[in-house]
Amino acid sequence: MRNIKLTIAYDGTDLSGWQVQPEKRTVQGELEKAFFELTGKRLRVHGSGRTDSGVHARGQVAHVKVPGGIPARKLARVLNGYLPTDIAVQKAEEAVPKFHARFDAKSKTYRYRILLSEVPDPFEERYAWRISPDVRVGLMRAEIESILGEHDFGAFRASGSNVRSNVREVLSCRVTQKKELVVVDIEATGFLYNMMRNMVGTLVEISRGRFPKGSMGRILLSGDRKVAGPTAPARGLFLMNVKY
Amino acid sequence: MRNIKLTIAYDGTDLSGWQVQPEKRTVQGELEKAFFELTGKRLRVHGSGRTDSGVHARGQVAHVKVPGGIPARKLARVLNGYLPTDIAVQKAEEAVPKFHARFDAKSKTYRYRILLSEVPDPFEERYAWRISPDVRVGLMRAEIESILGEHDFGAFRASGSNVRSNVREVLSCRVTQKKELVVVDIEATGFLYNMMRNMVGTLVEISRGRFPKGSMGRILLSGDRKVAGPTAPARGLFLMNVKY
Repeated sequence: MRNIKLTIAYDGTDLSGWQVQPEKRTVQGELEKAFFELTGKRLRVHGSGRTDSGVHARGQVAHVKVPGGIPARKLARVLNGYLPTDIAVQKAEEAVPKFHARFDAKSKTYRYRILLSEVPDPFEERYAWRISPDVRVGLMRAEIESILGEHDFGAFRASGSNVRSNVREVLSCRVTQKKELVVVDIEATGFLYNMMRNMVGTLVEISRGRFPKGSMGRILLSGDRKVAGPTAPARGLFLMNVKY
Repeated sequence: MRNIKLTIAYDGTDLSGWQVQPEKRTVQGELEKAFFELTGKRLRVHGSGRTDSGVHARGQVAHVKVPGGIPARKLARVLNGYLPTDIAVQKAEEAVPKFHARFDAKSKTYRYRILLSEVPDPFEERYAWRISPDVRVGLMRAEIESILGEHDFGAFRASGSNVRSNVREVLSCRVTQKKELVVVDIEATGFLYNMMRNMVGTLVEISRGRFPKGSMGRILLSGDRKVAGPTAPARGLFLMNVKY
């Protein structure tokens, strides 16, 4: 058996997230189906982490143990022949036998896209959160600074999720604007469940003046999920890459 | 009755083109349904021209006679409340009573997007024609020049279409490239059925070296549909704007 590292892109709009679920189209499910059609074997594809229904990826990473045969460099093309058009393997590489897509991940980068417009754009409906343009993007840029470094991110964790520790390190974060499009990029050693969407929801409330300046830091310190902003919708979120 | 000019954007992927058809989702059909829900009346929405199933628009134009009431500037927002997310009215303006979206059009601009990549991109699958990158874009740029000006475009007309004259004037045309993306923009006084897609299909054959240099001009002069290249797929085509 060889260990293959896959880099995968998907348009999450019509998918029920990463994880296999009976009767539903999921990324893991479609990949495993493609491997079954290719090899006749039920292989398990291990992702770097789950993504929710509607969330996209440009650089999700997974590993899979495959029986010898097809060279890795040909595997991407062959798999794409079996995959639906909303999922595509970008790269397939031989990895060391111990490589594990989830446990070996050093950091992940997520991007959140916000469209500042009163008018719906059919080409952005699937890929951005459209909000009223009367927001101060400068405030988002100033407030996001307070999440840099190591913190307990419990205030931005979805209620009901269950992990050992809420401590993560944000390695970089930035808010950029190009015309109507605001992009939030965050690289961290890990993300709690819904952390990115909760942070973006909070940043938007601040930029609208509904939360006072300094709220981002205060909410982070409070550790209290109830004081953070709403959860931004899945459609604006992209897993951009995973570093090892 | 007031005459309203609408500017409409749509993601054509899941639509059966512009024209109303029973049992199918079409742009005209969805717009007329929205007007019916809004006014209780069956109004006819006249487009600048039809677009085929899968073809997109950023600036399709239509006119519609509406009973007095809602101000034009509020109409776009109200209509968008009734429209599905793949269709959005960008602008609604009062027009002179004689304004006709089709007969008064002076020129139209179409864009065709080509993705040069061996690897599928799930975010471009709906919006570009992906082809193998071993093409010479410079050849496309050189060859497209020969369509400038007034010509009989019969060689690029879909067989079976029935119009009085095949003469149209191309006012501007260009091929631009940004990394993997090649964009073909053509402004003309009018487009024959499938003309844009047939011209792009021909340009691609030339860029691949399957048709010799000078083919674009020769095919145009021949007037013979059988010598032109294949029809490029609908998904790469965008009606960008209509001038009056």
